[in-house]
Amino acid sequence: MILVETHDAATPAPFKEILRRFEPEFKRIEEALQQHFSSHIPFVNEVSAHILFAGGKRLRPLLTVCAAKLCGKDGDEPYKLSAVPEYLHAASLLHDDVVDAGQMRRGRLPAYKIWGNSPAVLVGDFLYARAIHLASSFGDVRIAKAISETVALMSEGEIIQLLHAKNPKFDEETYFKVINRKTAALISTSCKIGALLGRGSEQKVDALAQYGLFLGQAFQMIDDVLDYTADTQELGKAVGTDLAEGKITLPIVKALKEAGPEDRKRLISMLGQGLPSREKLEWVRNLLKDTGGIAYTRQRAENLIASACQYLDIFPKFQTREFMKGLARYVLERKK
Amino acid sequence: MILVETHDAATPAPFKEILRRFEPEFKRIEEALQQHFSSHIPFVNEVSAHILFAGGKRLRPLLTVCAAKLCGKDGDEPYKLSAVPEYLHAASLLHDDVVDAGQMRRGRLPAYKIWGNSPAVLVGDFLYARAIHLASSFGDVRIAKAISETVALMSEGEIIQLLHAKNPKFDEETYFKVINRKTAALISTSCKIGALLGRGSEQKVDALAQYGLFLGQAFQMIDDVLDYTADTQELGKAVGTDLAEGKITLPIVKALKEAGPEDRKRLISMLGQGLPSREKLEWVRNLLKDTGGIAYTRQRAENLIASACQYLDIFPKFQTREFMKGLARYVLERKK
Repeated sequence: MILVETHDAATPAPFKEILRRFEPEFKRIEEALQQHFSSHIPFVNEVSAHILFAGGKRLRPLLTVCAAKLCGKDGDEPYKLSAVPEYLHAASLLHDDVVDAGQMRRGRLPAYKIWGNSPAVLVGDFLYARAIHLASSFGDVRIAKAISETVALMSEGEIIQLLHAKNPKFDEETYFKVINRKTAALISTSCKIGALLGRGSEQKVDALAQYGLFLGQAFQMIDDVLDYTADTQELGKAVGTDLAEGKITLPIVKALKEAGPEDRKRLISMLGQGLPSREKLEWVRNLLKDTGGIAYTRQRAENLIASACQYLDIFPKFQTREFMKGLARYVLERKK
Repeated sequence: MILVETHDAATPAPFKEILRRFEPEFKRIEEALQQHFSSHIPFVNEVSAHILFAGGKRLRPLLTVCAAKLCGKDGDEPYKLSAVPEYLHAASLLHDDVVDAGQMRRGRLPAYKIWGNSPAVLVGDFLYARAIHLASSFGDVRIAKAISETVALMSEGEIIQLLHAKNPKFDEETYFKVINRKTAALISTSCKIGALLGRGSEQKVDALAQYGLFLGQAFQMIDDVLDYTADTQELGKAVGTDLAEGKITLPIVKALKEAGPEDRKRLISMLGQGLPSREKLEWVRNLLKDTGGIAYTRQRAENLIASACQYLDIFPKFQTREFMKGLARYVLERKK
């Protein structure tokens, strides 16, 4: 399953239309993903395929292809390159599930739960390496550099998050440090490498990287909102997982700031205590609503998406630019 | 501590002399290692330093520097590049200790035992990424490619080993598949990137890569011998660790082939059962001696070292070439 088309009446019609128009790109992205990941060891392929072909949204590769197209680059190369960020993303998910002891991923058991920690760590390493190797095959050292820099940031982001788990002093500044590294860096780089492949001017490369950075920040914020507001079945993992793992996200930062001392204390006591009961989760949801935690996070995400779209205004108003603005809207409206 | 100078009378004098002559190189290697690994996050530096500055032999960076020198390249750049294979090595050790649940590393607790699995995995990722980023900074895409290819092989090697743990049908062919990937690939690449940096001819690059490959195979074989024959204190970890973890190495392959059915059965029953008692270990040692497992492995390593040295004969008989031949001898004679 690719970018899921929600049949919710709240989804504006033009958005659905935009997704449909990306269908040929999605097909070629899937082909590229199949083509470039393989190891000589069947077991490595089995573990890789488990995470790679389990209903990812393919947002990152689509951004690479679109950014290349905006810089005038078509053909097979952008698709080949678009596999790079998706492999990195898959590698990071393999490791993150080990780190977070995640219970579900995209509606399935995470790899470490099926095969153990070791294969999850080692196949993650393999996928990182395959991605970087693929990135080096374009003969442009700027692409290889951007990719390895991003991997370093991604691991730093996870580490900062880990160090601050259950820390009620976690503030907005730390939140942005985490999400810039663990999520927005790769989404930004997905755009940037497409632009580099397309030999875009410095101005264009920077504009697309900025678009990706803001889009990535908003993407993570909506993720953090969905962790409290989504439907478990649709989300593919239990609602309340962040709370269970003691991860402090923007809705919680806001709630901790606005809540009264009693509520604040109760919320802190729930951090990192495993999945909350339905009753407790309901209480947290109401608190996040009453303190404006959810609304505030959504508003910040909307502003970021608006800024992201502005960065695209230096490009002529062709189809691809409008598609990318549409994609940005998707980030706000997605249900999973 | 760097390449340890053993004061064993069995060590030939010229060998000690050779090590002493590398002292200026070791000093500059340490400086380069200090200079290029740092993260903005102090905790990442703490974990990195724990593994990076704990008495590594610095064999890989020394090979990079020497290979560059043989191809006519001096100055700071080879030292900067030489940090790349050492960071990769450190990253792989962080992950391997998680994978193998190793109990000791270089006489200290492994990182995952101090800080937990998650920091070990994530700081490993960070070091991999830093290494590849550093490798990309030389503007030669062949270096970046060689490095990422090597990381993929290293994780494959660990995976093959993991899949075959405790498997008594593990044969020499599989053994070479494992050690080529998990050890020899990086040692070969350490030489190759030095040669690439030095803009060596294709013949020179290939010769140095082959020297490194054979040296790396021999290095691992001696490692596998030391795991049964060394002194625990000198080795920095318990003797018999491979047996405890169910890792089948060349001495064991040979013993399984040559032993009678009773001994064979008893040996198989000890694989992967934790550290053997002193009595059991003594029995295994005797079996490895009687079946020729140790002698056979040493002989294979000696032959490989001889072949490795032959590859250097295309270079003029300057100091560096002779040093590298001396280094190859070190691999055979080391005690840890």
